[in-house]
Amino acid sequence: MLQSHQSELHDRLDTGVTELSTFRDHERPGWSREVFSEAYRASREWTANRMRAAGLEVHLDAAGNIVGRLAGLDPSAPALVTGSHTDTVDGGGRFDGVVGVLGAIEAARLLAAGGRQLRRDLLVVDFLGEESNVFGLSCLGSRAAAQELTPADLDRCDYRGVSLGRAYTDFGLDPAKLSDVPWARRPLQAFVELHIEQGPTLEQRGLPLGIVTAITGIERFIASFAGSADHAGTTSMEDRRDAMIAAAEGVLAVRAEGCGAPTHGVATTTRVDSESRSPNVVPSLVRMYGEVRSVDPGWLSGVQGRLGAEITARAAKLGVDVGFEWSSDNAVVEASRGVQDVAGAAADTLGLPWMPIPSGATHDAVHMASLAPMGMIFIPSKNGKSHCPEEWSSTEDIAVGAQALVATLQRLDGGDTRPQH
Amino acid sequence: MLQSHQSELHDRLDTGVTELSTFRDHERPGWSREVFSEAYRASREWTANRMRAAGLEVHLDAAGNIVGRLAGLDPSAPALVTGSHTDTVDGGGRFDGVVGVLGAIEAARLLAAGGRQLRRDLLVVDFLGEESNVFGLSCLGSRAAAQELTPADLDRCDYRGVSLGRAYTDFGLDPAKLSDVPWARRPLQAFVELHIEQGPTLEQRGLPLGIVTAITGIERFIASFAGSADHAGTTSMEDRRDAMIAAAEGVLAVRAEGCGAPTHGVATTTRVDSESRSPNVVPSLVRMYGEVRSVDPGWLSGVQGRLGAEITARAAKLGVDVGFEWSSDNAVVEASRGVQDVAGAAADTLGLPWMPIPSGATHDAVHMASLAPMGMIFIPSKNGKSHCPEEWSSTEDIAVGAQALVATLQRLDGGDTRPQH
Repeated sequence: MLQSHQSELHDRLDTGVTELSTFRDHERPGWSREVFSEAYRASREWTANRMRAAGLEVHLDAAGNIVGRLAGLDPSAPALVTGSHTDTVDGGGRFDGVVGVLGAIEAARLLAAGGRQLRRDLLVVDFLGEESNVFGLSCLGSRAAAQELTPADLDRCDYRGVSLGRAYTDFGLDPAKLSDVPWARRPLQAFVELHIEQGPTLEQRGLPLGIVTAITGIERFIASFAGSADHAGTTSMEDRRDAMIAAAEGVLAVRAEGCGAPTHGVATTTRVDSESRSPNVVPSLVRMYGEVRSVDPGWLSGVQGRLGAEITARAAKLGVDVGFEWSSDNAVVEASRGVQDVAGAAADTLGLPWMPIPSGATHDAVHMASLAPMGMIFIPSKNGKSHCPEEWSSTEDIAVGAQALVATLQRLDGGDTRPQH
Repeated sequence: MLQSHQSELHDRLDTGVTELSTFRDHERPGWSREVFSEAYRASREWTANRMRAAGLEVHLDAAGNIVGRLAGLDPSAPALVTGSHTDTVDGGGRFDGVVGVLGAIEAARLLAAGGRQLRRDLLVVDFLGEESNVFGLSCLGSRAAAQELTPADLDRCDYRGVSLGRAYTDFGLDPAKLSDVPWARRPLQAFVELHIEQGPTLEQRGLPLGIVTAITGIERFIASFAGSADHAGTTSMEDRRDAMIAAAEGVLAVRAEGCGAPTHGVATTTRVDSESRSPNVVPSLVRMYGEVRSVDPGWLSGVQGRLGAEITARAAKLGVDVGFEWSSDNAVVEASRGVQDVAGAAADTLGLPWMPIPSGATHDAVHMASLAPMGMIFIPSKNGKSHCPEEWSSTEDIAVGAQALVATLQRLDGGDTRPQH
């Protein structure tokens, strides 16, 4: 790449991250731009304009994804797709998702400017609402594109009782037509997503790139502990059925499960809520929210039984009943062997060292994998931080990722057969 | 007591509890009538009318207490005071406090109807807001009467940011004049409060009465755990600084402290809150709310040091920092030896078996103890339940309590010297 191009790429990525980060909810901590929020709504015109300025034809699809097309020589050939998302978690950072959208736009710009038109159409997608949200459902846009968003999903309600379907309507989208996404129905050659690692491995090993082998499966749970509401001053310790004690034991059991997991297995209690507002009542109803993740399907499939038995047994000793609701957020998804090979070869040609790496986070790529051979390219995260204001990847690292994406897309464009699943 | 009087007493107590319980917040669970609520406001006219119908002169004092006076032969003699409260905790029951107000009104009615006028004025008080509330301050009315409500207390805010002073103003009371309570400034001979036990001891021993020896001290705490907000999918278990794990260890440490306490010592975590709303972030800021109670001042005074050291040490192993805010809600208050003796003798004369008993709950009597020799009479609570909808005391037991109160007040009226403190 020419020095001037290199410097221009740096500048564009740098200003892109900075400008997009100005769209945030100032009432929330960090860089919050949650799906359906006013900040998110306002940011999308910026993103669409950024795509147009890179030479893409832009449209908003029925699922709420912003799609930019770089026309290929043969519009009937299976298309290439790349992209990520621009929403954030509450209190999140500036790079998760954003790197994959801005990187894809810059990749398209470089490919358009390269003088040699691609054979295939290239679609750059900013997927709607990838992050976990108040409805407890992530990857809204890619899920809908893959026809994996169900009517029951639309009935999910947030803590105020507002349904997801209603949130779509309020955002200007028709809940009845969310799966009506023509670009996702046409033959697709491959999907590649550039993303920050969100973990410390690449930084610790001093590597600029990771090529994803598989994306973690996620099992989420809500455990409800039911004890007895007694006066906290007059009920002796032995006469209590304290739901909070049982929940605390549960939090430690969840941790023990994670600590006993194989590599890339984790278990987290993210929230504990008590029903009572009173400061002098023994808690009688406590809910514990959490999740378990692994790229090992065998370990993950046993987790409900193991955790359920352990937590129920501990609670029973305290006279507390436990009920569980489990929901499978994602099964383990393997990346396409063929796309991994192409991305690895592309990195090698650029002289960029890389490692194969599993993804502990879920991504739009999970749903795109049902439409096309899927791969992901990771760049380092400073101190492994993500989903927090300190999340950081250097412009240099993002630029390297964008260049690896360009080289990968060029190689995928050239292939006559679809990469191996 | 004549059979007809007995039957009338039962009926009045029964209808009193039932009628008063109709004033409740239908949006909250149980029998909620929290201080400053609309339900509480509406109930107070009923209570004042109940006092008037019993022959009492009624006024609302500047602290918001409803005071009914039964005039004695010698208005200059130190007066007798009895009463309790009619507010409830959120999700509470129908008897806590109510028994002491209705019992006091019926005691006054019986004394007025008895044909032998008391020598001393008898004041029946429905104290404002005795229960713990959203401002974290209990015993508002008795605290103000005892001049123990401070300007700093009025600056306490609820979770919406509304100050206690503002709540007083909205309730029609002048925050600047709350301690301007003439009845509490005159010489008082004794204060006696009838109350439900709120614990299982009397029922377990088959005794109709308990005479309180001391009222528990209460130390409340908020512990803030500060860890690191990391992605719950990509951060390995060993790289985490998980504030929720440290809080769970804290909950168990609080329990262990309570279980190692002397008789009538208890320790409770009533609430755990996580700052983050995200389901895929390792909790970085968790707050734990709780309290420790005992009638043993020595044990109680050591609790801050013991719990602070234990919880901080456990958290340090997890890389989590802990900060504590302690507030002393009440020191241990001994009941007057003289009032205990008089109440015991009165019960003996009526042929009612009783036991000396400590109070694990705090009461308006704590604050009245600074104005007059103080005593309390307990009646049984079914299954020891309190601060919950299942709270229950039989009309028979309440009537026995009211009769014991009458006999105690008669004996206290006759004494020439103040009972021994």
